[in-house]
Amino acid sequence: MNKIDARQRILDAGAEIIHAKGFNNTGLKEILDAAGVPKGSFYFHFKNKEDLGLQLIDHHGAAFRKLAGECFFDQTRLPLGRLRRFFEALAEMLERNGFRLGCPIGNLAQEMSDLSPAFRDRLAKAMGWMQGLIVHQLEEARMIEGQRVEADPAETARFILNSWQGAVMAAKLEKSRAPLDAFFHIVFNTLLAPKQPTQNQ
Amino acid sequence: MNKIDARQRILDAGAEIIHAKGFNNTGLKEILDAAGVPKGSFYFHFKNKEDLGLQLIDHHGAAFRKLAGECFFDQTRLPLGRLRRFFEALAEMLERNGFRLGCPIGNLAQEMSDLSPAFRDRLAKAMGWMQGLIVHQLEEARMIEGQRVEADPAETARFILNSWQGAVMAAKLEKSRAPLDAFFHIVFNTLLAPKQPTQNQ
Repeated sequence: MNKIDARQRILDAGAEIIHAKGFNNTGLKEILDAAGVPKGSFYFHFKNKEDLGLQLIDHHGAAFRKLAGECFFDQTRLPLGRLRRFFEALAEMLERNGFRLGCPIGNLAQEMSDLSPAFRDRLAKAMGWMQGLIVHQLEEARMIEGQRVEADPAETARFILNSWQGAVMAAKLEKSRAPLDAFFHIVFNTLLAPKQPTQNQ
Repeated sequence: MNKIDARQRILDAGAEIIHAKGFNNTGLKEILDAAGVPKGSFYFHFKNKEDLGLQLIDHHGAAFRKLAGECFFDQTRLPLGRLRRFFEALAEMLERNGFRLGCPIGNLAQEMSDLSPAFRDRLAKAMGWMQGLIVHQLEEARMIEGQRVEADPAETARFILNSWQGAVMAAKLEKSRAPLDAFFHIVFNTLLAPKQPTQNQ
């Protein structure tokens, strides 16, 4: 095993175990055993367990960026269709996992926001990046006839992202798709629905 | 210190420390030291740490029921005004805490849903109870002229509760009221806003 393999194996094992059990509830030894990497090799790549945690946020972020690239630059869909497709892809992943695990960024935000300023800063950046992508779709939708979004894009994007995080947490709690269905229904069919043309009476 | 005092002191100390640090990240010894209660006394009142955790959900639930009673049975407000007042009271508590801690039920749901079926069951019941109270306000609002809510009350209540949980998590991450403001603005001024009467053209 070369050095690059070792780093990647630690990240992969750490991502999986911490996603399932939480950061503080996971021992470094458990990660290294799962990765099949000795402790000395760990300290060659990471300063400590917190440093691994921070690099895991980027590791998950890269996966989200890949999915976002596939969904948000799909020119065969209109902006709100792209946004819906992105959340649908996430919902399909959650469903395949039996609604276990939840969002790795959301889990860490809930667990670590008050415990580590370094985690908080890195997680807020990841959420801000995600929010920026949503703002962009809403702004594009504003300019397209039939997808006119009345609400303020920045505030609406913030609300949508947070509502998604809450829905994912509830799906994990209930082991059910119902919270995600309520999200899709209310966000896309009510909140972002084009205003009905005013009828003559 | 009598036995009832000991139980209450363990619950109060456990509620505070676990709210801040998480369930798995808190040792029983830390709680007992803070409560000033010896270990033997703990096992007189609780089977184990999990049993304490489950009783803490009820402990937090009682605080929510008290606040809900004050807000939802206030006959000087209309139903949506009562609902808004309830969330405003929670937002004021979060703001007083500098947006630390978050929702004790939401934190445990995020942390424990996949780790303990007993926690999951107890937390889902607490969330379901909360959702039922919101449904009731939306159904009452439906019957009152000027507060007519078009959307399905059960699905809307589920969405509102989950969106609130997501907004609280984001406020804790950002240490800012902005996610709560977006919640109030979009839920009460857009989602639940009475439909504008159709204008003659």
